[in-house]
Amino acid sequence: MFSIVILGTGNVATHLFQALRASEKCDVIQVYNHQPESLKAFEELTATTTDLSELMEADLYLLCLKDDVIKTIAEQIQTKTGVIAHTSGSQSILEASNSAVFYPLQTFSKGTKLDYSKIPFCLEANSEEHEKLLKAIASSISSEVFNISSAQRQTLHLAAVFVCNFTNHLYAIGETICKEDDMPFDILKALIQETSAKVQTNSPSDVQTGPAIRKDESSIQKHMSQLRHQNHLEIYRLLTQSILQKHDKL
Amino acid sequence: MFSIVILGTGNVATHLFQALRASEKCDVIQVYNHQPESLKAFEELTATTTDLSELMEADLYLLCLKDDVIKTIAEQIQTKTGVIAHTSGSQSILEASNSAVFYPLQTFSKGTKLDYSKIPFCLEANSEEHEKLLKAIASSISSEVFNISSAQRQTLHLAAVFVCNFTNHLYAIGETICKEDDMPFDILKALIQETSAKVQTNSPSDVQTGPAIRKDESSIQKHMSQLRHQNHLEIYRLLTQSILQKHDKL
Repeated sequence: MFSIVILGTGNVATHLFQALRASEKCDVIQVYNHQPESLKAFEELTATTTDLSELMEADLYLLCLKDDVIKTIAEQIQTKTGVIAHTSGSQSILEASNSAVFYPLQTFSKGTKLDYSKIPFCLEANSEEHEKLLKAIASSISSEVFNISSAQRQTLHLAAVFVCNFTNHLYAIGETICKEDDMPFDILKALIQETSAKVQTNSPSDVQTGPAIRKDESSIQKHMSQLRHQNHLEIYRLLTQSILQKHDKL
Repeated sequence: MFSIVILGTGNVATHLFQALRASEKCDVIQVYNHQPESLKAFEELTATTTDLSELMEADLYLLCLKDDVIKTIAEQIQTKTGVIAHTSGSQSILEASNSAVFYPLQTFSKGTKLDYSKIPFCLEANSEEHEKLLKAIASSISSEVFNISSAQRQTLHLAAVFVCNFTNHLYAIGETICKEDDMPFDILKALIQETSAKVQTNSPSDVQTGPAIRKDESSIQKHMSQLRHQNHLEIYRLLTQSILQKHDKL
């Protein structure tokens, strides 16, 4: 049984807490946050603390914290013998011998249910022993476990911003466009699902569709005249141009 | 039994052919294309022709054609008594009394399998009688059937470009970023799926994640320094700014 302390109570912390609690090989023995009110949701389920000096001994400390406080908190608990892993996509592994990375490559929102067994975990450690420990813990919740260097992880994190964060923003623009004409966003949901399903088995560049790749100038011009917000217009223009460039149609 | 002639042999024609053939209420009696080689895939399954003057009598003529030839072809077959419907998202309904629109709001690629019963069909006709006919045919393959005016359809088509075509291009950029650093695109697929799954039950603006909405300047700067292509950099900058604007973080 691996004993784990989670530091943080945000979306990543909450989802990892649920995933690790459900694993037969893991025991989340404590959750830390400096604000007592953030701990309420965890109090009935495990021990909690607002005081770093009261952290229990554990095999793994999971720092589910904002990027800019990871280093400070890690240094404050450096005397612990367990592995201290952060969960950030963009931060390099710290230098201390017990530093590590336990990065779940997924988007976490409150209230959404996830199949944890499909989440890719990107692991990095400063020793083989710690790498093994992280792998055993990650494998107990997911079948997708990878050793990934800090440089590789930063590449993945950057790519993830495009395929997840920016994509979600395009969904939001679609919703705005629908709402402004009293159309339900619901009618687009099958399309959204199929667009993501297609690239599970195809390269995205092989399944590109739409006015840009067809070089359908009249649709493009009509769309641009319909757009009511300057930034939507700029996004339309830039992405249309980028599709044309990629497919050598310029 | 509704008799249907399909004009065109592209992605939309091929998928609608399969969907309508599978319906117990429909019979695709003929497929037209001006190029004989494009008809090969259909020859064993139904009658085919390269000659508009040889079109059979049918209840419905489905024009699965490029936007810029719809009007010309429709005018050439105007003497037919059946309903003549195009399948374009962006073209208005034509003026003739038997003109109509039968627009499947989905992305069609060759070789991808689709659950036709979930495709939203956006219908428009110039008479109630024709509206009923279209509705009966569409309802025989899908449970998602809507009467949508030309103006509404153009709004949906515009929104679809954002949530589908542009989204797919962001996937393609993610793939490029991965490939350039020898990382497999596969590792991003769970994230892509979950991003689309989240907005099936949430408003996209409620589930936005990532550096922009967190106003995480250090990640944003790091990402911008990693990007190797000028147009990727411009897309990153514009979409980051647009997320900040939408969520009043500027």
